[in-house]
Amino acid sequence: MNPNYKKKALRFITAFLVLLSPLLVTSQTITSPDKNFSLQFELKENGRPYYSLTYKDKPVIKSSKLGIEVKDAPSFMDGFTISKSAQLTSDTSWEPVMGEEKTIRNHYNELEVTLAQSQNNNRIIKLRFRLFNDGLGFRYEFPKQADLNYFVIKEEHTEFNLAGNHKIFWIPGDYDTNEYAYTTSKIAEIPALQKKATIEINAQQPISKPSVQTPSMMKSDNGLYINIHEAALINYPAMQLEVDASSFKFKSHLVPDAVGNKGYMQTDTQTPWRTIVVSDKATDILASKLILNLNEPTKYKDVSWIKPVKYIGVWWEYFVAGKSTWAYGKENNVKLGQDFSKLTPNGKHGATNERVIHYIDFAAKNGFDAVLVEGWNVGWEDWIGNWKEEVFDFVTPYPDFDVAKLRDYAASKGVKIIMHHETSGSATNYERRLDRAFQFMKDNNYGAVKTGYVGQIIPRGEHHDGQWMVNHYINVAERAADYKIMVNSHEAVRPTGLHRTYPNWFAQESARGTEFEAMGGLNPDHTTILPFTRLMGGPMDFTPGIFQTDLTYYNTGGNQHVNTTLAKQLAYYVTMYSPLQMAADIPENYDRFPDAFQFIKDVAVDWDNTYVLEAEPGDYVTIARKAKGKNEWFVGSVTDENSRTANLKFDYLPKGKKYIATIYADGKDASWNGKQQSYVVSTMKVDSKTTLKQFMAPGGGFAISIKEVPAK
Amino acid sequence: MNPNYKKKALRFITAFLVLLSPLLVTSQTITSPDKNFSLQFELKENGRPYYSLTYKDKPVIKSSKLGIEVKDAPSFMDGFTISKSAQLTSDTSWEPVMGEEKTIRNHYNELEVTLAQSQNNNRIIKLRFRLFNDGLGFRYEFPKQADLNYFVIKEEHTEFNLAGNHKIFWIPGDYDTNEYAYTTSKIAEIPALQKKATIEINAQQPISKPSVQTPSMMKSDNGLYINIHEAALINYPAMQLEVDASSFKFKSHLVPDAVGNKGYMQTDTQTPWRTIVVSDKATDILASKLILNLNEPTKYKDVSWIKPVKYIGVWWEYFVAGKSTWAYGKENNVKLGQDFSKLTPNGKHGATNERVIHYIDFAAKNGFDAVLVEGWNVGWEDWIGNWKEEVFDFVTPYPDFDVAKLRDYAASKGVKIIMHHETSGSATNYERRLDRAFQFMKDNNYGAVKTGYVGQIIPRGEHHDGQWMVNHYINVAERAADYKIMVNSHEAVRPTGLHRTYPNWFAQESARGTEFEAMGGLNPDHTTILPFTRLMGGPMDFTPGIFQTDLTYYNTGGNQHVNTTLAKQLAYYVTMYSPLQMAADIPENYDRFPDAFQFIKDVAVDWDNTYVLEAEPGDYVTIARKAKGKNEWFVGSVTDENSRTANLKFDYLPKGKKYIATIYADGKDASWNGKQQSYVVSTMKVDSKTTLKQFMAPGGGFAISIKEVPAK
Repeated sequence: MNPNYKKKALRFITAFLVLLSPLLVTSQTITSPDKNFSLQFELKENGRPYYSLTYKDKPVIKSSKLGIEVKDAPSFMDGFTISKSAQLTSDTSWEPVMGEEKTIRNHYNELEVTLAQSQNNNRIIKLRFRLFNDGLGFRYEFPKQADLNYFVIKEEHTEFNLAGNHKIFWIPGDYDTNEYAYTTSKIAEIPALQKKATIEINAQQPISKPSVQTPSMMKSDNGLYINIHEAALINYPAMQLEVDASSFKFKSHLVPDAVGNKGYMQTDTQTPWRTIVVSDKATDILASKLILNLNEPTKYKDVSWIKPVKYIGVWWEYFVAGKSTWAYGKENNVKLGQDFSKLTPNGKHGATNERVIHYIDFAAKNGFDAVLVEGWNVGWEDWIGNWKEEVFDFVTPYPDFDVAKLRDYAASKGVKIIMHHETSGSATNYERRLDRAFQFMKDNNYGAVKTGYVGQIIPRGEHHDGQWMVNHYINVAERAADYKIMVNSHEAVRPTGLHRTYPNWFAQESARGTEFEAMGGLNPDHTTILPFTRLMGGPMDFTPGIFQTDLTYYNTGGNQHVNTTLAKQLAYYVTMYSPLQMAADIPENYDRFPDAFQFIKDVAVDWDNTYVLEAEPGDYVTIARKAKGKNEWFVGSVTDENSRTANLKFDYLPKGKKYIATIYADGKDASWNGKQQSYVVSTMKVDSKTTLKQFMAPGGGFAISIKEVPAK
Repeated sequence: MNPNYKKKALRFITAFLVLLSPLLVTSQTITSPDKNFSLQFELKENGRPYYSLTYKDKPVIKSSKLGIEVKDAPSFMDGFTISKSAQLTSDTSWEPVMGEEKTIRNHYNELEVTLAQSQNNNRIIKLRFRLFNDGLGFRYEFPKQADLNYFVIKEEHTEFNLAGNHKIFWIPGDYDTNEYAYTTSKIAEIPALQKKATIEINAQQPISKPSVQTPSMMKSDNGLYINIHEAALINYPAMQLEVDASSFKFKSHLVPDAVGNKGYMQTDTQTPWRTIVVSDKATDILASKLILNLNEPTKYKDVSWIKPVKYIGVWWEYFVAGKSTWAYGKENNVKLGQDFSKLTPNGKHGATNERVIHYIDFAAKNGFDAVLVEGWNVGWEDWIGNWKEEVFDFVTPYPDFDVAKLRDYAASKGVKIIMHHETSGSATNYERRLDRAFQFMKDNNYGAVKTGYVGQIIPRGEHHDGQWMVNHYINVAERAADYKIMVNSHEAVRPTGLHRTYPNWFAQESARGTEFEAMGGLNPDHTTILPFTRLMGGPMDFTPGIFQTDLTYYNTGGNQHVNTTLAKQLAYYVTMYSPLQMAADIPENYDRFPDAFQFIKDVAVDWDNTYVLEAEPGDYVTIARKAKGKNEWFVGSVTDENSRTANLKFDYLPKGKKYIATIYADGKDASWNGKQQSYVVSTMKVDSKTTLKQFMAPGGGFAISIKEVPAK
């Protein structure tokens, strides 16, 4: 451990500045605190900036171009000299409001390079590189200066010139959706596989060139794990990566706006951080806090109202049961303002008073914090596919959903109802109604909202991942904070660690989640990849916990099953970090498996410590975590389509103390596409020296809860 | 007078239905109540709908195509049969909240034609024609039906096939601005003049084809005055007119959205009304209430808070005095959220406490209802030209504008402050802040807001006159009504009579107004054209009343004068109808001309009756009006660049009573480009038999106030 590091010091900076003579130097090098990484910046032909990165002397990023192309003004591509350069070491730690670790260390060496364009009135930009022990973050900065106030970005030209034809876990580039299944291939195979990988998804806008989205997870032939993403995506479009499959070179591709522009910038400003997390151990990738560290601390003065949430919801039954619907009426043409009580009821509306009370009772009985209710508000009859702006008003319930009655009933049971704001992609409509919607929530005791952006975006021509929408999601989070409301966004741009800055934006979907288990099924390796990709940016509302894995059970004509074992569903509560965790199945199914359900009731959702025990992207992930403020530990392990035996240690437990571990494991005959519900619950005593070989079925997993031996 | 017409009956309908056998009839004809108009509808080749219109047997619109082109679905262009047709006579009257007449008669014969497309599942549309004694209104209607819920309009193909090469008063087609100067030419000359007519204006998007905007005013060689516009523009883009200059044919051209679509439609719905006001007397055009009659009555339950407003404002000095600015700071790069009190004051900020108090005092002393204050809120330093979204927050004052202090001071003086919400074209930013902005207004005793849309629209790619913005303006009016706030919009789409439906949206700019007198000057005939064009749609906040007509007076280096006489500025208060009237000059100038200023103090802004005494577009307009609820009359008359003598009668005065008329007239040596401030105030006794020949100087006018002789 670095001697400068002091656990108690939340803000402790050692600054070490080196000022260089301008114009004379064309290259700069820094190393990571542990010296494993080396970052070189240099100006090459015609004053064009390049960077390269090595890890333990292995090339990670070969010399790669940097640059920003500007519209209707000179670009920041070349013609640069280094006018100043400075280095700095920072070693601090901080405490997230909620998270995988109680305390996060933020230790890096920084290189700040000021580049001047003498031919453009000495206009300057800065490049800031932060080199951590887990990788690199860098960004472009545009200081306020006489000749630079406003500019429009035509494209960012950041290259990631990879050192080889790595194995890559990828989804295709798209401006509107990140809900693709992952493809595992070599980089060179991407162009040939792109079309197949671009499966049909609602409101998609694939990039025609070979491209992938971030977080992009790779493994090199020489054993390096490399993850490329971004941090602190604010007031800028999401970065996708164009793929040059012959030279293994990625290049940034920003999501355009309605008129094809890529970013409206006002100095003093900067791009998000471009992040490259690297290790020779896959577990280090999952343990990395680099992206969080590159985000700004929250400015919220009071965060006491931001709490983890374990919840159930009127939700899964819309996907599989075939017995209930979001919509109340049979009609397919409705308008806000009409009298919805005059619709012809379709007889299958899910969010009825009766059904919600049933969920509230179940939540209260089993210790859940909240009940999500979707389909409570008018407009669902024709909510999708019409690029319609005024679909929902967010304040008018269906006639069979009594807001006041359910508010009071939930309060009497100590349960919160989670509001649902599906926007149908109409962000303009949501923004104009936001204050009224949030005031309605406060008036009715709601503390959290699930937002949704299914469909083509309005403003028409904008994209889910463009600058305007990026700002929209943040605006929603900030306005929600004004009302002390937490936000769980679905179909939003993938996270980039902004839950540090906006801790009430506490979870997102932004990937292919459990709902797809009812729409064709997730690949058995999907959740061994997600922690290396989607979850690098932040918590996912993955909505695990499906016990009735065989969906033909509902006799609704489908021939479908969830592609996991039941035990694997339990493992997700640990392997898929989120301070918001759903028990997604319907209450009736949990009542049928009370022993397995005990794990969901027990498992924590906020943590003091996290131990990534084993991991290989696409194959397996095993994680142990200590519950926040409690002497309880939980372990989750998942495997892909292959059976596996995990080799577990418990050395994270305090030494010399005995604990009782309850193990929720696959049955020997279990399988993701066979006996999914075959599971075994057992207990054993463990201590810090215990080792355990634990079987997982194909597509299976296990979960363990560890508690102190009760005092006799 | 039609014997069916009863003044006291606000709702009196005579319905006369004729149902025709389907499929057999291909043509229908109706006449106006006074039989002067005849409208023929017919299906021609391939079931394509056509209409034609005559007035006193003269052709107005020769047989012209109708049709709606739909995107990605069959169009409503042809293949029609008449499946039903019905006629109806309606004769009612109604009282506007504010207006030129206390009671408005709404008398028309209607033809409703239901057209079916047998090849498209018998999809139907309706065409509804209403023929008044002052012209025609017609629209397309799309009833809810099994095969028609949502559709997207690619273009509307409504033709106006004119009968000759008329003289036309026009501004060029443009998606974003209607602030052009008028060109007077023959229709055939439009293509050659279009480029010259398209003078440079902030945020313009001219249509490349030869085109004009509506209201489009024409005069035929055979003495017909023809005005084409639209009524009730709701949830639809504005209609502009493509010009076929060789055949004198106009065709509708809708303003597109960001992706090129022209209208998102959900049945049951309709287009706005296309209006053709016709007469052989120009005065009848100005007296027409056809457009208002085609708008829906207001749904507001309480309109008691909607009042006419006569106001002054911290405004004109920004344009001419060169001594004050909207902005507080010298900086040209500011962001919401920064501390604006730390800017470097530019020393010329207009909206200071001191200056506003001066205006409030002046308003109180002279009987004005309100003081507009522009430049009160942070963000003006770089508000324009950057396509910046978050320019203003509408709630943060500059450090030298004390909201609470000025609120209390104004209240103590019985004066309201008018809020100013310049959006810089960023409608998304305004909408998301609207509730907070209006709540701030209520909290601080504001009752009216002037909105502004200078600059390129955000959502980017949308236009001022497109469907999205059309809906935005209405949304603002409706949300304002929630807070009992009146709205005066600038740079919005031109009005279409919606002040009947949304009476709190009580005035608009939407044309080249007085501000241009400080930016090159208005043409001397401009205000003899505006009543026939822009004002056909609704009240204009023209901001008249400039007394210091020579702007070199301010010694700010300009060589500029207002292109009217002082007396003409007074005439505008009568000729340019609005329930919102500004005395636009700075208080100091009114103090220098107390005799002329008396007219502005006296003149009414809401009326019982209006008498259009003389009018010829481009030449002159003389109007008399009776003040609402008072035995006071006011006359205004304006001429173009030519001197003129008006021949006035006073036969609208009650018979047998004597009145005192105060006449504010041009001096004999006055001229719009010479001795503008030469005026004569005189009085004379008048009665209903009086006649008066009243001189007007070149570019001049006069105003008369008529009061009862005080009892001795």
